[in-house]
Amino acid sequence: MESVLHEEIGEQPAVVAGLLAAEAASIRAIGEQLAQHSIQYVLIAARGSSDNAARYAQYLFGMINGLTVALATPSLFGAYGHPPRLQGALVIGISQSGQSPDIVHVLEEARRQGAPTIALTNDPHSPLAAAAEHCIALHAGTERSIAATKTYTTQLAALALLSLSISPAFAATTSMDAVPAAMRLALESEEQARDAAQRLAQSDRCVVLGRGFNYATACEIALKIKELTYVVAEPYSSADFEHGPIAMIERGFPVVMVVVGETMRAEMLALADRLRARGAALVVLGDDEQFRHSDDGWIAVPATLPEWLTPCVAVLPGQLLAYHLAQLRGLNPDRPRALNKVTLTN
Amino acid sequence: MESVLHEEIGEQPAVVAGLLAAEAASIRAIGEQLAQHSIQYVLIAARGSSDNAARYAQYLFGMINGLTVALATPSLFGAYGHPPRLQGALVIGISQSGQSPDIVHVLEEARRQGAPTIALTNDPHSPLAAAAEHCIALHAGTERSIAATKTYTTQLAALALLSLSISPAFAATTSMDAVPAAMRLALESEEQARDAAQRLAQSDRCVVLGRGFNYATACEIALKIKELTYVVAEPYSSADFEHGPIAMIERGFPVVMVVVGETMRAEMLALADRLRARGAALVVLGDDEQFRHSDDGWIAVPATLPEWLTPCVAVLPGQLLAYHLAQLRGLNPDRPRALNKVTLTN
Repeated sequence: MESVLHEEIGEQPAVVAGLLAAEAASIRAIGEQLAQHSIQYVLIAARGSSDNAARYAQYLFGMINGLTVALATPSLFGAYGHPPRLQGALVIGISQSGQSPDIVHVLEEARRQGAPTIALTNDPHSPLAAAAEHCIALHAGTERSIAATKTYTTQLAALALLSLSISPAFAATTSMDAVPAAMRLALESEEQARDAAQRLAQSDRCVVLGRGFNYATACEIALKIKELTYVVAEPYSSADFEHGPIAMIERGFPVVMVVVGETMRAEMLALADRLRARGAALVVLGDDEQFRHSDDGWIAVPATLPEWLTPCVAVLPGQLLAYHLAQLRGLNPDRPRALNKVTLTN
Repeated sequence: MESVLHEEIGEQPAVVAGLLAAEAASIRAIGEQLAQHSIQYVLIAARGSSDNAARYAQYLFGMINGLTVALATPSLFGAYGHPPRLQGALVIGISQSGQSPDIVHVLEEARRQGAPTIALTNDPHSPLAAAAEHCIALHAGTERSIAATKTYTTQLAALALLSLSISPAFAATTSMDAVPAAMRLALESEEQARDAAQRLAQSDRCVVLGRGFNYATACEIALKIKELTYVVAEPYSSADFEHGPIAMIERGFPVVMVVVGETMRAEMLALADRLRARGAALVVLGDDEQFRHSDDGWIAVPATLPEWLTPCVAVLPGQLLAYHLAQLRGLNPDRPRALNKVTLTN
């Protein structure tokens, strides 16, 4: 019997194509309505995988729309009872289930204050959807696996559509139609992901490094590894990593690096050299074969998209890596222990 | 010969008292000048320990000033060449050395755009200080140890003064004079910290949990443990932790919990029960003896301050924990491998 998780990983190209078809017009309409507001920054409330989608949004809205993105601290709105003033903010809540009370609470307060609000959720009848002025449905179908995969990539694609919709100049020259095909290509790296998993299988810890747009990818891959394999996988921006945590790296320490996109490549490769010099066991998810090093594990990421869209694609081989690592460690990837699909933090 | 790190940990009460005396008037004057601006949110650029101070600022400016705090993504300003528009932002750069080019770059761009800018640095002659309109000097003296301690706590105290200075109503009824005495009291927990270190010494991984104001404390303690002991110590907001990573916890897995302040106590203690049920080896840094559990490690944190000031104090026993863990693991806490005091990320 095929694993549900593996099946859902494979569904992603079709599911994202479905989202693009179903929501493009409605997201364009949201963009037109937002043009009536003077938006000075974006505030996003999210947890878990959705919070990694919010990290992508920091680079996306920054680069495409010139907007700073703040990640909300929901306890200010709830437990501490001191919600900040939200004048000038566009407030977005991201939640697969739309059930998390603390995320719903942020959106309710934002709407009460008159800020424009958007819910990104897989359930358009959820409390989050009801709380927000606008709702973007993810159209991912039921996600049966506990670990989020297709709801994460549809969140990224929906955020990219939203970003384009509030930047009409950019939208006119840009299409996201190439994304599903690139995702299909990314799934072809499965054998490399399985081989790379062998390099990680003997250790109960690793770090996952990325930078810029693909820092979000590193965070999401680390989360999948933790959820599915119970390996302590810590994500870092490679810039922060050199500020102290690099001290942990000793001979044989497994390091997964996401080296995708032009902007950070030189810096990431210089870091890879320093890590090899310390004896780290590297696995590189990369989009440029010429930087492939024979001693490293290598998982190819297609190089067919502009950098700002690569996070929709680069995470797929990372999901496969986590899946195969779970298999190698004798764990059932469909039933991670102690996880619930919906977390009800107040 | 006494360790330089240990000496600097012990200096903190006096150094923070010195900062409060030296900078209070000048920070009040900055607050008066900022009143001329219409500040809608705060943007902070920082890395490493300074980034943990920025996490404290998220709760501080949120609760005291009703302002959302965004943490900057410096690569948008540098590598990607797409700095966001900063209208409505108060922009703060935090750096011990004031040398990090990417943090300096954020402040230069903010000033070019006309946003009010503040540098928090231990070197008032640094490039960061030169780039900002206002400078708050940390007065920590030379920090000889590679791992930051007194520059971190002076950053927290300076941020608290700044927050009060832009909220005059609050300032009139609040004094920070009690902070140094509480810090002295916190240092008296050293023997408990040494005992607790024994519980962590056999494992090469652990997690550190906090929530709300003391999420920053959890992040900073985890960073000290990684820098000084090469143990993979991952920090979490306890809310995020239950969203997936709790799956890692198995019998004997070491968990450090910061349970300080009233607001999150009930929630943290319910989590502690769930972790004990999974067999985790707990070390609690706590301010309420009645919740002390005989099977846990316990490090007392003084309960003499309002919750929003506790991060200045709660981190001290955590620094001592990391120091003693390094000693137990036979490492020299003054010479962590591979660390540089100044990181020159572009």
